[in-house]
Amino acid sequence: MQFASDNAGPAHPAVLEAMVSVNEGYASPYGADEVTERVTARLREIFEAPEAAVHLVATGTAANALALATLAEPWQAIFCTPVAHIHQDECNAPEFYSGGAKLALVGEGDRMNPESLRAAIAAEESRGVHGPQRGPVSITQATERGGVYDVGEIAALGEVAHGFGLKLHLDGARFANALVALNASPAEMTWKAGVDAVSFGASKNGCPGVEAVILFDPEKAWEFELRRKRGGHLFSKHRYLAAQMEGYLADDLWLKSARQANAACARLADGLRSLAGVDFLQEPRANMLFARMPRAMHRRLHEAGARYYLWEGTLEGDDPEEPLTARLVCDWAIGEDEIDRFVGIARG
Amino acid sequence: MQFASDNAGPAHPAVLEAMVSVNEGYASPYGADEVTERVTARLREIFEAPEAAVHLVATGTAANALALATLAEPWQAIFCTPVAHIHQDECNAPEFYSGGAKLALVGEGDRMNPESLRAAIAAEESRGVHGPQRGPVSITQATERGGVYDVGEIAALGEVAHGFGLKLHLDGARFANALVALNASPAEMTWKAGVDAVSFGASKNGCPGVEAVILFDPEKAWEFELRRKRGGHLFSKHRYLAAQMEGYLADDLWLKSARQANAACARLADGLRSLAGVDFLQEPRANMLFARMPRAMHRRLHEAGARYYLWEGTLEGDDPEEPLTARLVCDWAIGEDEIDRFVGIARG
Amino acid sequence: MQFASDNAGPAHPAVLEAMVSVNEGYASPYGADEVTERVTARLREIFEAPEAAVHLVATGTAANALALATLAEPWQAIFCTPVAHIHQDECNAPEFYSGGAKLALVGEGDRMNPESLRAAIAAEESRGVHGPQRGPVSITQATERGGVYDVGEIAALGEVAHGFGLKLHLDGARFANALVALNASPAEMTWKAGVDAVSFGASKNGCPGVEAVILFDPEKAWEFELRRKRGGHLFSKHRYLAAQMEGYLADDLWLKSARQANAACARLADGLRSLAGVDFLQEPRANMLFARMPRAMHRRLHEAGARYYLWEGTLEGDDPEEPLTARLVCDWAIGEDEIDRFVGIARG
Amino acid sequence: MQFASDNAGPAHPAVLEAMVSVNEGYASPYGADEVTERVTARLREIFEAPEAAVHLVATGTAANALALATLAEPWQAIFCTPVAHIHQDECNAPEFYSGGAKLALVGEGDRMNPESLRAAIAAEESRGVHGPQRGPVSITQATERGGVYDVGEIAALGEVAHGFGLKLHLDGARFANALVALNASPAEMTWKAGVDAVSFGASKNGCPGVEAVILFDPEKAWEFELRRKRGGHLFSKHRYLAAQMEGYLADDLWLKSARQANAACARLADGLRSLAGVDFLQEPRANMLFARMPRAMHRRLHEAGARYYLWEGTLEGDDPEEPLTARLVCDWAIGEDEIDRFVGIARG
Repeated sequence: MQFASDNAGPAHPAVLEAMVSVNEGYASPYGADEVTERVTARLREIFEAPEAAVHLVATGTAANALALATLAEPWQAIFCTPVAHIHQDECNAPEFYSGGAKLALVGEGDRMNPESLRAAIAAEESRGVHGPQRGPVSITQATERGGVYDVGEIAALGEVAHGFGLKLHLDGARFANALVALNASPAEMTWKAGVDAVSFGASKNGCPGVEAVILFDPEKAWEFELRRKRGGHLFSKHRYLAAQMEGYLADDLWLKSARQANAACARLADGLRSLAGVDFLQEPRANMLFARMPRAMHRRLHEAGARYYLWEGTLEGDDPEEPLTARLVCDWAIGEDEIDRFVGIARG
Repeated sequence: MQFASDNAGPAHPAVLEAMVSVNEGYASPYGADEVTERVTARLREIFEAPEAAVHLVATGTAANALALATLAEPWQAIFCTPVAHIHQDECNAPEFYSGGAKLALVGEGDRMNPESLRAAIAAEESRGVHGPQRGPVSITQATERGGVYDVGEIAALGEVAHGFGLKLHLDGARFANALVALNASPAEMTWKAGVDAVSFGASKNGCPGVEAVILFDPEKAWEFELRRKRGGHLFSKHRYLAAQMEGYLADDLWLKSARQANAACARLADGLRSLAGVDFLQEPRANMLFARMPRAMHRRLHEAGARYYLWEGTLEGDDPEEPLTARLVCDWAIGEDEIDRFVGIARG
Repeated sequence: MQFASDNAGPAHPAVLEAMVSVNEGYASPYGADEVTERVTARLREIFEAPEAAVHLVATGTAANALALATLAEPWQAIFCTPVAHIHQDECNAPEFYSGGAKLALVGEGDRMNPESLRAAIAAEESRGVHGPQRGPVSITQATERGGVYDVGEIAALGEVAHGFGLKLHLDGARFANALVALNASPAEMTWKAGVDAVSFGASKNGCPGVEAVILFDPEKAWEFELRRKRGGHLFSKHRYLAAQMEGYLADDLWLKSARQANAACARLADGLRSLAGVDFLQEPRANMLFARMPRAMHRRLHEAGARYYLWEGTLEGDDPEEPLTARLVCDWAIGEDEIDRFVGIARG
Repeated sequence: MQFASDNAGPAHPAVLEAMVSVNEGYASPYGADEVTERVTARLREIFEAPEAAVHLVATGTAANALALATLAEPWQAIFCTPVAHIHQDECNAPEFYSGGAKLALVGEGDRMNPESLRAAIAAEESRGVHGPQRGPVSITQATERGGVYDVGEIAALGEVAHGFGLKLHLDGARFANALVALNASPAEMTWKAGVDAVSFGASKNGCPGVEAVILFDPEKAWEFELRRKRGGHLFSKHRYLAAQMEGYLADDLWLKSARQANAACARLADGLRSLAGVDFLQEPRANMLFARMPRAMHRRLHEAGARYYLWEGTLEGDDPEEPLTARLVCDWAIGEDEIDRFVGIARG
């Protein structure tokens, strides 16, 4: 009963097989190999963006920090929510890679809207050379709290950003989970909605460690390559990085895995919804949910070996009815039986 | 006939199998898994360094830049040779990660000696707050020109560095190749000879992408972890990184592969040595050699499909006897027949 | 009628005379001169801190950024209020000098209290290597909104910071104005209340451009010197920088000037207080006040040539009674007649 | 007998008077004052560059580091000589401000020539994304060893730099001394010879602390302003910085002072030249000379209280005839009697 993180789950066997399948003979290093060429073409096709710059790195933090450093100047503010992964969970990687840019917080929760974004941008307007200058906007899709922006919501944010001459970055660590939740195309969820750059995550959804950074305007492609190299993120035996992504994209594995994870999460939500004393911080749409559950319920689950983060509260405490918030994440590999067992124990 | 780089060669199948073998169920992310625990213990054992801090990253540039940033202050000079990989081939990664340290060049070729090191350190002495301050020393073993420092030579450099209160870093992108050439133990070639930190390379010798940074004094282990995280080099599904290293170390695969590569290189050297008009920049000891060969010989090889870097000179030119320098690198996978074929064509 | 900023006012003639008085013959450069020696001793005496490290720079942003970079690691968060000068008005200088630290915002206005500080620090606790680590706390005295922390309030913040093992920095761009408002000694307002480092401002209170950074624990004095040098903030003809500070401190000029500015501000406040439709965002205690005044009043003042910032609202607008917020700053040179004239025009 | 450095000398009284003369009433801060406007116009006039961006800072290191950071990308190499002030005497300020650029050394002494520059640039050509990319070229005029580039020599270097698409920066810490030595106009010695950016020094030649950075192409003027601000180098009471420069330029004071210093140096050179056992590292042309003088001569001077740097060698030693190298610098204030006394003591 593993709901701690989609980072804890296994890689999809097909992805490892793809790595094995390219392990033959010699290949030009540093991304000049044929696997990289194929996977670049495939990503451009998937995104309907034949000109886009596509680069692979191994971690989501690298993808985000390199993308933002390419979009932002050191004296700018990058706009994001207070719970953004780039703000809370990357140990200042964006500040490091950008050479000292500031993260300016928008709104209060896991998502921004045009009003809160406009207000935050406007607040950075009047101090001339003294204040940080306005820089790119970064949103997370699906969000860090399991939310999903609709395509129209992204487009509205893109309009605000572009209205100020700013770029829009999308942290897609759970890109596929959001995509299948929306039933949209990659192009619709990104550049057609005003997104300028994407961190296209694959690790959480079944790869050992690979992400793509996609710059729809390739003007800064070479700058990105130099930043990747001096960040130590250019792989010498690059074909193995590319092979992961190739396996991930082949036969729509990425979409199937995301659908499995989302379906598992929906099953879990349905099960929990029926229990007395349980409610959700927001209606789950992708593969992560935040549920308030009574302390006694948590204790039962904990004793039975269930693994997940207690987001708020502690198991210790006198009141067995006090609601404590759980973060529950499903990955592609979680079984229906595990979910049913979890719900059964929660029911008591 | 692939002699361009050990970065072009395949991964060893056993290493990929090791990745597959850990692909079962859930594991704590970010290095808190059992594979990482095992491989950390194994590296401490191999290095006879039970207290050492051991961290994995995916690329050699990351290993070097993170190690040096941990050892150096931004206002210091890092001492290295003019052909050091950290100076020539990392697109300023050490400067980036260290926050602006300077690389001060020692001597003229691929190796420093106590005199040239002492002179370079002494030259940074007299300007108080104005000059860069003295920082760590970094050597490469095997060197970028295929040379190998003997254990005593390393110890002599360590003595100079420590005499000035400076740390000694060893860039071991080809650690195993040097080790088996010396017939030394890892401890003898490192901390027993005064080395404080090692970039322990594995990618060039048969892994898809993994290196270990070993700090023999663990005092800065936590700082290193923070630097790795904010550099985007901490893998979420860390077990796959660790599994590569585990497979690499198991059954002495790393030593066997290095011996194979060195033996291949020796066979190549022996073959070329017998040819008229061929000589070596220095006597090859590991898996890389630099040979001067007549232009006509290069042309024959080129036409036959041999792949390697022409280090100096061009195939175009009037004089068929003019010597042009080739860099020839052997990896673990190169076959004896390939080498013999290469020598045969060279012979003409 | 100049109330725009104490940065707009003249230097005190005695300070310029002090510069002229040292302009004789040769003096060792880079701070090894006698004037620097004297002024360092004098500041240690004034602060009752014979061991303190004392360094001069020319601007407040340099003082703050260098002090914070010396106290903070690049992977840490620096705690400050949302209106802190270091956050809003230094174009990311603290991020730049620290190598990418993050500014974490405490509370909502211009001052923090133990509860809001404790909450902000606690919020950075639970993410291990992923989140930014806790770093120093920085408060501004007098605050950016004209407030003054009482000595006990500073001590309470110092206690919270030290309880977490964190350092406390005080941005004293208007140090003297706060000090005379509190009728405290420099030691009482700083190290006796738990302050570890001070940016001791002098420019706003009558110098062309000089500030002192005082580190009560001199352990990092040499690091500070190296940071100052590589920041380009070490003056060659340092005696002229030191002479400014010497003139500023001589005969208690700094305290007298601050008392003049505060008295001017109190006179202005008293005058405005008596007018219908005027009130203050907070009770003014130093040399800066924020007053809400009807639009018509602003218009009269504007037409009469008064200079100050409209903090909120615009002169254009239909409603002559709508309250608009003015920031009014007095410096040592402002005359009573100017203030009375201003109040008279405001009265209408 | 002060020949240690032109940093040790006094400011010219007229410069301090200029500061006093602007100390009246209120002025817009941060460079929006009339003095700054006037001095900007004056510098544009002097350089015959009506479009140039002109910015003031207080130190030469700030001028150089900000100029180079504006011209260079973090992944580039900045070309300079091994004895360049930016390389040896700024504690890695260029590396810091540029975000980690590398300084690539050209030639062997204090000056580069087209061949050595071309060779150094060419050496950074062949490693694609791996090596540092080619960045700006920086020369020092007058050089750190008292040499002066002729206008044609600068033009030849400019041609090489521009041929590679690179910018040319001139570190003019002793700009005026070189200018009067050449009898050239500021335009001839800079943009007409291909110089793109100048650090126009004034501190060494009679100011307490002011330098101008001049970018002949104003395209990056706003970027420079942001870099200056976040570097803490934008003065609030900017009129005092500007007044120094205004006083320095008025009535050709800057040229007169430089001529005085150069004449003093020539008198010193003539005196020393006549002595047995004295010779010069290069023929002195500006206000600094390097002379080899017997140890006994140094001892006599030292005992008589002469102050200068012993560049090579020590006063202690057995052989009274052994030549030791002195660096002797003259500033505008040095008197003929002092020089004659120095030469007299040297003569013995």
